[in-house]
Amino acid sequence: MKIVIDIPGWLEEYTRLNRVFNSDEEKMLMAIEIARKSIENGGGPFGAVITNAKTGEVISAGANLVVRDNLSILHAEIVAIMMAQKRVGSYSLAKIGEFELFSSSEPCAMCLGAILWSGVKKVVWSASSKTARKVGFDEGPVYEKSWNYLKSKGIEIKSGLKQKEAEANLYLYKEKNGVIYNP
Amino acid sequence: MKIVIDIPGWLEEYTRLNRVFNSDEEKMLMAIEIARKSIENGGGPFGAVITNAKTGEVISAGANLVVRDNLSILHAEIVAIMMAQKRVGSYSLAKIGEFELFSSSEPCAMCLGAILWSGVKKVVWSASSKTARKVGFDEGPVYEKSWNYLKSKGIEIKSGLKQKEAEANLYLYKEKNGVIYNP
Repeated sequence: MKIVIDIPGWLEEYTRLNRVFNSDEEKMLMAIEIARKSIENGGGPFGAVITNAKTGEVISAGANLVVRDNLSILHAEIVAIMMAQKRVGSYSLAKIGEFELFSSSEPCAMCLGAILWSGVKKVVWSASSKTARKVGFDEGPVYEKSWNYLKSKGIEIKSGLKQKEAEANLYLYKEKNGVIYNP
Repeated sequence: MKIVIDIPGWLEEYTRLNRVFNSDEEKMLMAIEIARKSIENGGGPFGAVITNAKTGEVISAGANLVVRDNLSILHAEIVAIMMAQKRVGSYSLAKIGEFELFSSSEPCAMCLGAILWSGVKKVVWSASSKTARKVGFDEGPVYEKSWNYLKSKGIEIKSGLKQKEAEANLYLYKEKNGVIYNP
């Protein structure tokens, strides 16, 4: 049996633009644009990108593919982590270099754990979990001390970047009656 | 780009035995046997099975494929959840019926979140995270209130079943100098 995750062409395209970013804001705006594009393509309202911290290059992009693929683990962050690890050929990005994850929303309990194992050295998110919950998404057991655990392992955390822009996507999704795919 | 997870033949075989279980102990012993077989096949010392709670049938099996596939998310529980969801054709097992996950070790922070989104109604584990940590595996930020959050969502939790048998695999892995694939 093979489990095949066929990355949508529109999503992979974001890693082929050869754009080099000079600021966290620009990287976050790409993650937010992916979230918007994901809604247009019938997916969940979340986007993520992983960049090389040294060069500013985009190494992978993720969108929420839970409903399309019938796989509850396929949150945007997980898709971005899998794509990045396949590209560098390692189960730990930390063994290859310095990478950072930008997510359009605060990662849920599963993604928080996945970020810890991924080997990224920095995680930045935009929309708050409070807003995600308000539109209907459960975020699971995430506590301040959960993020502090990641910090204690050397992962840099930054939140609330371009928050208004990211939360607009969540409200748009709610307006469009997008599927809330909690179990 | 396609991300392909090719389930090992020896692992898939566990779902083809047509064994019907009548007790949690029997289901756990299969998860522990998978963990042992995983070590023999060069994988991480963890195994999982998902069964249909009503019929006692094994619907999926998981082993730790992190190192083989260079994907840090491929813990045994994640592999079992993906296989089960692909088989029933839904991102939520709860939409299909009543399913339960047996894991040879206490799930890590990522898998705890993944269990919440999977739609299983019950989770049972064997080896304690304390022992997993002792042989070198980080488990991430998992707190008593994290599990209580799952309980509050209607998920039944049971721990310590056949613990001695499961922990023997962890010690065996350490003895064999198995890869500790923390980032």
